[in-house]
Amino acid sequence: MTMLAIRKARPQRGVEVARVERPEPGFDELLLRVRRAGICGSDRHLYAWDSWAELNFPTPFTLGHEIVGEVAAVGAAAKGFDVGELVAVESHIFCGVCRACRTGNAHVCEDLRILGIDVDGGFAEHVAVPARVAWKVRPEIPLERAVLFEPLGNAVHAAMRFDVSGQPIAVYGCGPMGLMSIAVAHSVGAYPIVASDISAYRRGLAETMGAHATLDAAAPSFESDLFDALGSRPTVSLEMSGHPDAFRQALRLSANAGKVVLLGIPPTPVSINLADDLLFKGLEVYGVTGRLIWDTWYRTEAFLIRHGDVLDPMLTHTFPLAEFESAMDTIHTGQCGKVLLEIDA
Amino acid sequence: MTMLAIRKARPQRGVEVARVERPEPGFDELLLRVRRAGICGSDRHLYAWDSWAELNFPTPFTLGHEIVGEVAAVGAAAKGFDVGELVAVESHIFCGVCRACRTGNAHVCEDLRILGIDVDGGFAEHVAVPARVAWKVRPEIPLERAVLFEPLGNAVHAAMRFDVSGQPIAVYGCGPMGLMSIAVAHSVGAYPIVASDISAYRRGLAETMGAHATLDAAAPSFESDLFDALGSRPTVSLEMSGHPDAFRQALRLSANAGKVVLLGIPPTPVSINLADDLLFKGLEVYGVTGRLIWDTWYRTEAFLIRHGDVLDPMLTHTFPLAEFESAMDTIHTGQCGKVLLEIDA
Amino acid sequence: MTMLAIRKARPQRGVEVARVERPEPGFDELLLRVRRAGICGSDRHLYAWDSWAELNFPTPFTLGHEIVGEVAAVGAAAKGFDVGELVAVESHIFCGVCRACRTGNAHVCEDLRILGIDVDGGFAEHVAVPARVAWKVRPEIPLERAVLFEPLGNAVHAAMRFDVSGQPIAVYGCGPMGLMSIAVAHSVGAYPIVASDISAYRRGLAETMGAHATLDAAAPSFESDLFDALGSRPTVSLEMSGHPDAFRQALRLSANAGKVVLLGIPPTPVSINLADDLLFKGLEVYGVTGRLIWDTWYRTEAFLIRHGDVLDPMLTHTFPLAEFESAMDTIHTGQCGKVLLEIDA
Amino acid sequence: MTMLAIRKARPQRGVEVARVERPEPGFDELLLRVRRAGICGSDRHLYAWDSWAELNFPTPFTLGHEIVGEVAAVGAAAKGFDVGELVAVESHIFCGVCRACRTGNAHVCEDLRILGIDVDGGFAEHVAVPARVAWKVRPEIPLERAVLFEPLGNAVHAAMRFDVSGQPIAVYGCGPMGLMSIAVAHSVGAYPIVASDISAYRRGLAETMGAHATLDAAAPSFESDLFDALGSRPTVSLEMSGHPDAFRQALRLSANAGKVVLLGIPPTPVSINLADDLLFKGLEVYGVTGRLIWDTWYRTEAFLIRHGDVLDPMLTHTFPLAEFESAMDTIHTGQCGKVLLEIDA
Repeated sequence: MTMLAIRKARPQRGVEVARVERPEPGFDELLLRVRRAGICGSDRHLYAWDSWAELNFPTPFTLGHEIVGEVAAVGAAAKGFDVGELVAVESHIFCGVCRACRTGNAHVCEDLRILGIDVDGGFAEHVAVPARVAWKVRPEIPLERAVLFEPLGNAVHAAMRFDVSGQPIAVYGCGPMGLMSIAVAHSVGAYPIVASDISAYRRGLAETMGAHATLDAAAPSFESDLFDALGSRPTVSLEMSGHPDAFRQALRLSANAGKVVLLGIPPTPVSINLADDLLFKGLEVYGVTGRLIWDTWYRTEAFLIRHGDVLDPMLTHTFPLAEFESAMDTIHTGQCGKVLLEIDA
Repeated sequence: MTMLAIRKARPQRGVEVARVERPEPGFDELLLRVRRAGICGSDRHLYAWDSWAELNFPTPFTLGHEIVGEVAAVGAAAKGFDVGELVAVESHIFCGVCRACRTGNAHVCEDLRILGIDVDGGFAEHVAVPARVAWKVRPEIPLERAVLFEPLGNAVHAAMRFDVSGQPIAVYGCGPMGLMSIAVAHSVGAYPIVASDISAYRRGLAETMGAHATLDAAAPSFESDLFDALGSRPTVSLEMSGHPDAFRQALRLSANAGKVVLLGIPPTPVSINLADDLLFKGLEVYGVTGRLIWDTWYRTEAFLIRHGDVLDPMLTHTFPLAEFESAMDTIHTGQCGKVLLEIDA
Repeated sequence: MTMLAIRKARPQRGVEVARVERPEPGFDELLLRVRRAGICGSDRHLYAWDSWAELNFPTPFTLGHEIVGEVAAVGAAAKGFDVGELVAVESHIFCGVCRACRTGNAHVCEDLRILGIDVDGGFAEHVAVPARVAWKVRPEIPLERAVLFEPLGNAVHAAMRFDVSGQPIAVYGCGPMGLMSIAVAHSVGAYPIVASDISAYRRGLAETMGAHATLDAAAPSFESDLFDALGSRPTVSLEMSGHPDAFRQALRLSANAGKVVLLGIPPTPVSINLADDLLFKGLEVYGVTGRLIWDTWYRTEAFLIRHGDVLDPMLTHTFPLAEFESAMDTIHTGQCGKVLLEIDA
Repeated sequence: MTMLAIRKARPQRGVEVARVERPEPGFDELLLRVRRAGICGSDRHLYAWDSWAELNFPTPFTLGHEIVGEVAAVGAAAKGFDVGELVAVESHIFCGVCRACRTGNAHVCEDLRILGIDVDGGFAEHVAVPARVAWKVRPEIPLERAVLFEPLGNAVHAAMRFDVSGQPIAVYGCGPMGLMSIAVAHSVGAYPIVASDISAYRRGLAETMGAHATLDAAAPSFESDLFDALGSRPTVSLEMSGHPDAFRQALRLSANAGKVVLLGIPPTPVSINLADDLLFKGLEVYGVTGRLIWDTWYRTEAFLIRHGDVLDPMLTHTFPLAEFESAMDTIHTGQCGKVLLEIDA
């Protein structure tokens, strides 16, 4: 039996919309009928096959790591799941036995495999995943929000790593990750939240998500604007853009003894004045990879149930799986929030 | 009345051993008769008047911020101290009313003044300090160890910021700060402790302080040597050298989800592969400035009472105040541990 | 010059509305013209002069520790305040030099004096307080909310001690402290919040504050009702009632590894099955006294600016100072939220 | 094939030394040839079959949950173990899928089964355990210390729950758990450690473990003796005795804002003055069940490698399995440290 899938077939720019063999669930796996999938910034890198992708990943593989689907078949040892149940998927397939996994850090498992890169992913009508990375979706959460579990979990991880309640915070970058982190920080009482981006379109979305003020990151007066809007320096800063300047600003503009969370992926090495901008300020910097498994998921579930509707304005576009190229074109315009794929096998 | 003092009289290399007016204690100050003082790495920068010093500090001033002395006079509002009591001094003169000071972060006070730079310091027969930065020395602690409170507090701050008990740790750099951090980490159960330096002399001292293994930081096999000696990657790393390569190594060689403490001051900006070496590893980086006031001091006091004798081998040289230039010469050879000044006014 | 004040003149039930000498500000004090004051549960105990009060406090004194007022005069050493500024007051007058004060725990200072008990308080036209316990009120916060800083700070301390964001929590007791803790927990994303009380009136207020469900604490089905309403056991529980049964329930009904915050003051010793209800469940219990100084105040300020209007429905009654007895009568009916005093000297 | 085992055959006092069928390893299990086993305080309760045991546990079963053994056979799905490897066993058989298990709290799994109570234990020549609770023993750790992993892990959990480094601590009770907690606290730099017991024999062992002072818990001057020996109130207190008076003392004598760890199991409800002894002091109380899985185990391993010899003086008696009754007799005298069983099938 075959199925439709978005394949990185060769180590070069672009993808193939192909028909491939439908997978069978392994011993400890679930076969999922994918219902919705989200396109991540890293999928753009894989599509473009830039230097980062080229160095790191062998082809071919099926893309897609932000997914929600129905259980279509259950492997012999994959206990606790029934056919027809809706599940979201933790994309970090952890080994479960390394020191990181055994001490609460499975998100940086020493033998990590990533869905949609290291193993065939979910931009496909079906996908097989280990049962241990499946998360049952509660019925209060509609399909179009349930697909957000994975990327929203990143934002929850970033925004809740340090206690932002009642704290003045700065969010650098208003792409989908920045937008979701604003919504999460707002839901846990950060105040004020000042977000910045060079795109007026995205700043508009940031206000919808709950930013108390938004700033043009390219304005010459950006730094004084930030202090004015916050009424102080930020005690917590979220770097969600991946821009080297933004990370340097996040350090330099932070309050002393502040916390800086790094989630945006800088494409090149970044030169940092460690003495003045980190050490003498007594800062703490935390690098966000994935989600705390499963602490973050419980918090993400609570957010989706209580506040999920807040995210609807950033769900700007949905395409059928077969129109993946159109989805990528939309993303390249920058005039979009989160772009989803609808899959109906 | 005049006194001997080590003065940075002009914005150029060197110091003057001068006679100056003895200070009077202000309203909320104590006048101390200095008994011992320690020479810090930052004093070397001030002596040399390199670009860092040149940019930051106006002259003239008296050097010296690691001191212990007897109370010689008490200002009108400086309650709680008696003439003759022995006190050590927190060199970070905090304002007490800024947000940092009011939320447990006086060590990075927004209006910080540093003893021996911003105000006249304690390489002198007498010094006046605000009573709020004075710490009473318990009688169990002899004079030659009590002078270590300030720099040892830095090491306590660095080594106890994250829980190293039963954890494999790496210490980069075996100058006085590295050596003291090894002794402190050893006292709280870090295991194994692997320390590195390019100097065989200092590696010898590191073993005396409790390092379970020491490595030549310049050896081609350094990285694999480190993993072999630790039996794993370090979960906590202390960067005490200020060398840019060491900080990059501390990140890159860390266990995933590890903690990296930065205390050594890099003299220039450092280029860092944030994506691979911090973000994807899920690291946390903390910049150590000064000491937590007064939490670190209580822990430092306990260490000095229980383990103070461990540090004696690193107290290699003591000079009279008037022979400050000889003390600096000794430091420049690198064949020394902590160098102290004995003052007898 | 004399002024009106509510005095506990003798060690017996009741108070006197008396004219007394207006205080002069001491060396390090501010004299405040009191504008609003709140009546606390502990004021009820002092009024009734029950066994707790009888044992602990000498008379006479002026009551009142929840206050906001204008600076009317400034002591010689009370720097940083101007006549006319509006300030709220930390009622825990800490010494500043004991180990607790010097390690971030001034709220449980070893030499603590309480305003309105150990020193004359603010149910009066004027009050003198040390400048170090005064907090400047930002102009965005109206007078009738600014008076809440002290008790709201208790609720902030309780609700933010553990991370409740995205966590199912139970709140036992819907008096003013319970109500404010619900509002605070709601503002930082606790979900769901299930609150209980025996009073239908107070359960109604609890819903206004943001409780997702409220339960009759006296209902036979209370325990199963709680689990149903939460969808699980609570991971954080706030005991705000002071009722011994409620504390036992908070332990027994908690999720394993849960956190129980104790703020309500049990009037008698409580018998607890420590083995089954605390130890084997792996619980953590925290006793809330006062506010973290000043960390809690910054968070309280942010709450008042962003969410202060949420509290308006619980501000049910305001009386002139001279009608203190009427205010106490209202409190005794139980049909009220927070009762305030308006003072206009 | 049969084997020797210590059986709780009937719900009454005593045990049977019986021959029973040797178990087969299940699908995900290991069969262990037991080499050493330790007798725990809870085994005494099971032997005596007091009210606690009577209420909670069905018979028959094989006792024994502190064990080390060699892998004798490996179930089909029990990957990662080889016949002949030495393993210690986590006695808390966790489900792995409940909320507690999925958020770092498997030690209080909602569906916990205890080895040697809920399933047949290791006072036997062979035992079958799920592979997920097996811990590989490193070769540096000799057999007679490796058997301590489970109870020592409890002590590590208790002594490292709060940061005791450089802190004055009190340990109530010097049975094996108290003794091990002293050794652990000593290894991580607690200072001073003051331990108390009514038994002079056990106080002697406590000094061997590293207590800086020991006190007779029954002395009339106990409280002032404690403050004198510590030089202050304890900031961390470990209640290891299970005596109701000791827990009350631990609260009442604590420093304000102190931490109290409860590991000793009180046999009856305890009446507590929550207002004065917990709430107004701002204390935090933590109930220790089992070990953090696997964080505690890594720390315990480091302790055994670096400090294991410290424990040798408390390993006072070893009996062959068949002489279990003699072992129990020894324990009842109170003149012993840890009592071990040697098993040689």
